[in-house]
Amino acid sequence: MTALDAVSIITGKRDGEQLSDAQIDWVIDAFTRGSVGDEQMAALAMAILWRGMTRRETARWTAAMIASGRRMDFTDLARPTVDKHSTGGVGDKITLPLAPLVAACGAAVPQLSGRGLGHTGGTLDKLESIPGWRADLATARMREILSDPAIGAVVCAAGADLAPADKRLYALRDVTGTVESIPLIASSIMSKKIAEGTAALVLDVKVGSGAFMKSEASARELATAMVELGADSGVRTVALLTAMDTPLGRTAGNALEVAESVEVLAGGGPADVVELTLTLAREMVTAAGLDADPAVALADGRAMDHWRAMVRAQGGDPAAPLPRARHTETVRAERDGVLTRLDAMAVGIAVRRLGAGRMRQGEPVQFGAGVEIHAVQGDFVSAGQELLTMHTDTPEAFASASAALADGIDVDAAANQTERTLVLGRVQA
Amino acid sequence: MTALDAVSIITGKRDGEQLSDAQIDWVIDAFTRGSVGDEQMAALAMAILWRGMTRRETARWTAAMIASGRRMDFTDLARPTVDKHSTGGVGDKITLPLAPLVAACGAAVPQLSGRGLGHTGGTLDKLESIPGWRADLATARMREILSDPAIGAVVCAAGADLAPADKRLYALRDVTGTVESIPLIASSIMSKKIAEGTAALVLDVKVGSGAFMKSEASARELATAMVELGADSGVRTVALLTAMDTPLGRTAGNALEVAESVEVLAGGGPADVVELTLTLAREMVTAAGLDADPAVALADGRAMDHWRAMVRAQGGDPAAPLPRARHTETVRAERDGVLTRLDAMAVGIAVRRLGAGRMRQGEPVQFGAGVEIHAVQGDFVSAGQELLTMHTDTPEAFASASAALADGIDVDAAANQTERTLVLGRVQA
Repeated sequence: MTALDAVSIITGKRDGEQLSDAQIDWVIDAFTRGSVGDEQMAALAMAILWRGMTRRETARWTAAMIASGRRMDFTDLARPTVDKHSTGGVGDKITLPLAPLVAACGAAVPQLSGRGLGHTGGTLDKLESIPGWRADLATARMREILSDPAIGAVVCAAGADLAPADKRLYALRDVTGTVESIPLIASSIMSKKIAEGTAALVLDVKVGSGAFMKSEASARELATAMVELGADSGVRTVALLTAMDTPLGRTAGNALEVAESVEVLAGGGPADVVELTLTLAREMVTAAGLDADPAVALADGRAMDHWRAMVRAQGGDPAAPLPRARHTETVRAERDGVLTRLDAMAVGIAVRRLGAGRMRQGEPVQFGAGVEIHAVQGDFVSAGQELLTMHTDTPEAFASASAALADGIDVDAAANQTERTLVLGRVQA
Repeated sequence: MTALDAVSIITGKRDGEQLSDAQIDWVIDAFTRGSVGDEQMAALAMAILWRGMTRRETARWTAAMIASGRRMDFTDLARPTVDKHSTGGVGDKITLPLAPLVAACGAAVPQLSGRGLGHTGGTLDKLESIPGWRADLATARMREILSDPAIGAVVCAAGADLAPADKRLYALRDVTGTVESIPLIASSIMSKKIAEGTAALVLDVKVGSGAFMKSEASARELATAMVELGADSGVRTVALLTAMDTPLGRTAGNALEVAESVEVLAGGGPADVVELTLTLAREMVTAAGLDADPAVALADGRAMDHWRAMVRAQGGDPAAPLPRARHTETVRAERDGVLTRLDAMAVGIAVRRLGAGRMRQGEPVQFGAGVEIHAVQGDFVSAGQELLTMHTDTPEAFASASAALADGIDVDAAANQTERTLVLGRVQA
């Protein structure tokens, strides 16, 4: 019998003990109801960051966060559900071509996205740059769209009743230096994904300077924790570790990334975006128990049909011109050589400074702002050649954005051109 | 140049870095003003508990808490100032005979006491059991009393402007499992003692089951941290480590302890209380740079004169009968043998259950409640002999109080009588 009060739970974890199931259920419930205060949960989060949680504790913590709200259920749909979650990177627009592509292969893709901080703009910000498109959907309408074989995919805002304990804890961790805990990150992501009711899940865990996980070892640890949580909750889960040292594709910024996604759906687009979209699509189709070939669905235009239907189903006009920023400025190579580094983090900072992302929750974003990439890491460049174009409605941001970019660019005359490895590893139960 | 924002400070400490002076000043000031929230300070406190603080950090932390309020100054008094602080134990009434005794030796004793939790009643609770006595004094009146050679000692409530950062942090640590950090305990105690303006300080660091520090090693670590903080702030500080495995003296409870203190001042009283009072008085007299002999001041009645004057100066009537509880019940020995254990913690729990202490700040206490001790640890006792008398106005508490006591009493027929060592060590700069 373990004590069910906040101080006993905090001091137990602080002293390296395991929390009991009853303690975890109690503390998450009391935190959701407000009888355990933010200051107590902050101390507990720091103790968890310090001492860790076992697989049993993390699974129970996740289950308790799911139980703090409503768990959706799509088992009555005629088609299998499968979703993808990325831990986030610069230029990571993969959800946009991926969701309609996998829907075109016969799956239903119920993606509920949080309105997180989105330093460089989140998936909802990107889609909201499409004129008319709305992130909020009633559950009944979501179910209609998922059932419709001509659409089959939704990307919408998670309701307040989806893992509310996680919503509070996520905001609290952000201001208390308790973000960097593998069990807390894994349970935060997985509580939302399990609560959204998907039967299968493919995780894209980013590794590198522009990702939350800087090393492959830490990314693998997070991926393993999430795959275990999926298995423990009956959600078929597989994780890929993918490179995020340099931006994905040729654009970073909301409308710029939508345009690039449409290029991919039209059969073009940057090779790395196409490769990652198809790799993740194959994993999702397999996890959903289907045997369609995503490359065919992309090539024959069915993915584009599903994209247009998906955008229209949420009020958007897929044919409308996308917003463009009023001002642009170019960054050029200072010398001849190989672009040995185009740092994802530096580009991310520039994109935020240009107005495409936010520092605080709720801040507006500029849909047209961002960075276009003309030369990618590993390319040979000549002095004076255009490397990047910055886009913004607030041209006073060019100075600080280009300063961030300058810190992220190395050109080495003696280096050789290189090829990038995009998929670094795979984790499954 | 280190970052002056809450999250950078928390994550820096979390990751094992030292906080800079500027960071410490900033975070204590922002916490006092409310722009660093309780949830952020709770996370930082847990990170400090985890990673510790160096002597430099702890000294700066203490200075910042002092600077959050007013620092008193008694350097203009004709007599040297010296104070004593005990980390707290069961039956620890030593301040009551000690303050007037040291005043009788020629020092001024400016003791500002916090209204802490006082599970078994604090020094202010004990003195408030004297009819008429008031803990609140204006600073001008405090100065008058300290200057008066016939009084020379005050024990009064610390004002809200004395180390206000510590007041908030102390309350926060209590509910967030972050009490047990040596640098945080040391800086909490020393910030208040340094801010109260004493020139010299003697610390009584309790060791044992009834004390906060259960081991001599941890008590020595705390004593060393506090002696260093005193030295770093120009306050001559010495610490004694004293035993708190069994209660001090023959009483625990507010009015019961006042009565015992008066016995000591009258030349009687339990040997351990007399011994500790004289030992601490000698340390204080020496630290104050005086060469009076406390044993003489106790024996010739001057200490009692100062006690009466001190009580009267704060509105109390030293001749008035003390409150007595309406109900008593006796605990007897169950067998013949040596009382090998009369556990301080068990007695402390019983005393609180009888109504002499409190679980929450601001709860009223019963002045007459407590425990009288008829046989002390190491005594030979016979079956049926009275060991303890419980006093309370709420007789329904007898059952739970005697259950706590039963857990704290061992009588062993085969054991030998023992003598107790009261002073276990001494720490000075």
